Amino acid sequence: MRVTVWNEFQHETRGDERVLAHYPDGIHTVVADGLREVLGDAVQVRTATQPEPEHGLTEEVLAGTDVLMWWGHIRHAEVEDEVVERVLRHVHAGMGIVVLHSGHYSKVFTRLMGSTCSLRWRNEGERELVWTIDETHPIAEGVPNPIQIPQQEMYGEPFDIPAPHELVFVSSFAGGEVFRSGVTYRRGRGRVFYFSPGDQEYPVYHHPDVRRVLANGVRWARPRHERRTLTADPHPLGWFEG
Amino acid sequence: MRVTVWNEFQHETRGDERVLAHYPDGIHTVVADGLREVLGDAVQVRTATQPEPEHGLTEEVLAGTDVLMWWGHIRHAEVEDEVVERVLRHVHAGMGIVVLHSGHYSKVFTRLMGSTCSLRWRNEGERELVWTIDETHPIAEGVPNPIQIPQQEMYGEPFDIPAPHELVFVSSFAGGEVFRSGVTYRRGRGRVFYFSPGDQEYPVYHHPDVRRVLANGVRWARPRHERRTLTADPHPLGWFEG
Amino acid sequence: MRVTVWNEFQHETRGDERVLAHYPDGIHTVVADGLREVLGDAVQVRTATQPEPEHGLTEEVLAGTDVLMWWGHIRHAEVEDEVVERVLRHVHAGMGIVVLHSGHYSKVFTRLMGSTCSLRWRNEGERELVWTIDETHPIAEGVPNPIQIPQQEMYGEPFDIPAPHELVFVSSFAGGEVFRSGVTYRRGRGRVFYFSPGDQEYPVYHHPDVRRVLANGVRWARPRHERRTLTADPHPLGWFEG
Amino acid sequence: MRVTVWNEFQHETRGDERVLAHYPDGIHTVVADGLREVLGDAVQVRTATQPEPEHGLTEEVLAGTDVLMWWGHIRHAEVEDEVVERVLRHVHAGMGIVVLHSGHYSKVFTRLMGSTCSLRWRNEGERELVWTIDETHPIAEGVPNPIQIPQQEMYGEPFDIPAPHELVFVSSFAGGEVFRSGVTYRRGRGRVFYFSPGDQEYPVYHHPDVRRVLANGVRWARPRHERRTLTADPHPLGWFEG
Repeated sequence: MRVTVWNEFQHETRGDERVLAHYPDGIHTVVADGLREVLGDAVQVRTATQPEPEHGLTEEVLAGTDVLMWWGHIRHAEVEDEVVERVLRHVHAGMGIVVLHSGHYSKVFTRLMGSTCSLRWRNEGERELVWTIDETHPIAEGVPNPIQIPQQEMYGEPFDIPAPHELVFVSSFAGGEVFRSGVTYRRGRGRVFYFSPGDQEYPVYHHPDVRRVLANGVRWARPRHERRTLTADPHPLGWFEG
Repeated sequence: MRVTVWNEFQHETRGDERVLAHYPDGIHTVVADGLREVLGDAVQVRTATQPEPEHGLTEEVLAGTDVLMWWGHIRHAEVEDEVVERVLRHVHAGMGIVVLHSGHYSKVFTRLMGSTCSLRWRNEGERELVWTIDETHPIAEGVPNPIQIPQQEMYGEPFDIPAPHELVFVSSFAGGEVFRSGVTYRRGRGRVFYFSPGDQEYPVYHHPDVRRVLANGVRWARPRHERRTLTADPHPLGWFEG
Repeated sequence: MRVTVWNEFQHETRGDERVLAHYPDGIHTVVADGLREVLGDAVQVRTATQPEPEHGLTEEVLAGTDVLMWWGHIRHAEVEDEVVERVLRHVHAGMGIVVLHSGHYSKVFTRLMGSTCSLRWRNEGERELVWTIDETHPIAEGVPNPIQIPQQEMYGEPFDIPAPHELVFVSSFAGGEVFRSGVTYRRGRGRVFYFSPGDQEYPVYHHPDVRRVLANGVRWARPRHERRTLTADPHPLGWFEG
Repeated sequence: MRVTVWNEFQHETRGDERVLAHYPDGIHTVVADGLREVLGDAVQVRTATQPEPEHGLTEEVLAGTDVLMWWGHIRHAEVEDEVVERVLRHVHAGMGIVVLHSGHYSKVFTRLMGSTCSLRWRNEGERELVWTIDETHPIAEGVPNPIQIPQQEMYGEPFDIPAPHELVFVSSFAGGEVFRSGVTYRRGRGRVFYFSPGDQEYPVYHHPDVRRVLANGVRWARPRHERRTLTADPHPLGWFEG
């Protein structure tokens, strides 16, 4: 299983100290380490970042990626449309994608959803409890119910997403808000998992239960079939009788 | 619109003082008053209770009911199977049903769901916040987001229900738990709405926002078509060509 | 209720005789006439076409439109991105949209779906039977089950759309294929209905049952709330406690 | 993986010749052979029939069953309620179930669905085409799209089931009807797959593609977690903080 962890890599490179305290080499490196920690030899992880040419997501990279993870926050608008289209094309053809936290507002995720993906938010370092709704879902395997995250940015409903294929997690925050924090979708031949915990200011991607969820999410999103572009082809009468 | 509010009517008749403080004439009378308050002349409300013959739910009563509301708690097992079948038959033929709070464990609701409807719970009089997930849903019309209920029994996930047709409300509790507190289903030709706020020990059915939700729920669940029993009938080749 | 029927208006203006035989003044005029025939004074219908400036879909026109109907086929790529974004913004804010037939491949629809919307097809003038799956759905009101369309282009599964919110119609074709021909979605605050019958070469939009479905679809898709742009706003702790 | 194939075993034992021509030792033996043929050593198959004590479905048998397959037709009413409850209890706790053809009207399936499960039908030995809607679904793996069944009983919409979790197959029949012939559900911790092809009068369970679907269905429905009965337990404040 080949995973590419993508990061916009802005908070870190501009020297935001609260971010560097937890992610000195970038959020992507910590997410990647978490996958390796949980999945071991079952996974090959590489990383890619927005400042690289083509944002590090060339046709070759995507063709060699089973699951793409996406973290972005303050540079969504600068992601090139051509790369967005390329990512969408690969998802539709079968590549899995796991979108993280503020990636809800990325071009890629809003294009997959077809909605605004707006939400309520507040950054006060509140406790987040991540409740498993569907305890038999493979993404929830091996995590406590609830997962307890001591400090997090609050994301609250209404979250403008289409009704998910599967509602895996719902979070509550110390301030009282709730959020559908783990949701799955199918788009084309690809699987989509969105997981909201993970702000840049808190060590959320070091949290062992969060790492477990991300590893489960990657396993769940991996393609089971060959990648194939879907097209609208004509079919003569009786074509299947042959 | 003709509504029948059904109550098991046990807490009140056995003299439970905490219940009688809020519902001296029974929970059903307060729920019925709430519907009249919000819907006025648009609704005719009658009540029925478990101690009555046939639990007050004769064929005639159900045939004259557009929407049935169901409140039960400690006498689920004593509800006669024949009456349960009768209610299910009417729901399948088009009668709406609104199931309240501990009615999640009633024979009627578990039969409509096909699952156990189990949940976590705690009765400590905590604050419940009822968040609207889908702000355009007619059941959420005219209520604040969130509804604030000062004291409530906690109902928590995992709630063993089938994934709802529509997820309208999710609650959080002061203790941190979350719950899918407002969910809709279609069964046969009938509409089903489950709404969890409403314990017997707290004045929840006097709460103006809760009353609004119940009125909205009744309006949403009302049948738009003639009641009709669904059967499996043979159809000859070309029957539709006329 | 204010409806705008939009047509790419290419087959007609380039003089395609098989199209002009049924739609001498454009498909949009026949669709508009059908709405007026069924809905009478309950609807105000205007039309807009791709050759007009801004494709006839200025901010002013969309602001005054409750439901937009979309027919396009061979000029999808020429629809300006700015107009597409404008339409999406209005759908997300609450405008209803009814997408017709080959509009499945339009920028607007694929952007709302987040998938490729590819399908199988064949144009041999086969009989299409449109079966109602959910007989209580308001879009199916007053139409026979099945609707019989003597001649149609075949659209067949797999149709690459997200699992619909509601599956209203499934069609079969004389050649044996099946198609999810009537599906609903929610996107943002807006309602989306896709209905596949309606090729330019057959008089499908003159068919009384098809006209009934389109009128029902418009009624179903109309907004029930004020149009409102969804944004991600910060909320301080305790903002709702007032 | 331990599978129990259950058959009402009435058509065969009363000497219905058209049935015995294809199923001389009972439908269950042919279904069981099909599973062994496709799954080989990965599966242990046993059978149980309605005439046996407790219908062959003792607590011990169910406790040792990962997936139960259910075929019944003319003796649904004679299935003992106690056995039905036992089966439901095991499904809710995690046992998978695959319901076949006329099993749509069984007590077990209608209880899992909560609806009438009525449908249209005709037995004229028509060609059925089974179209895959979701080509990436594991139940559709390795089968042609469409599967062609030369002779079948027609089952037609409207099929009164709750909207499925996943719509895997839709069939068309030579006479023009359509049917959601492969649908999945989750109930409690258990997975449910209904597959309609398979009348007693036609050799459908000898068809290699149908056998593949049944084997896929069994694999999909198998439990991934320990069997566990869901109950409603009280939880004190802060129980999860440990």
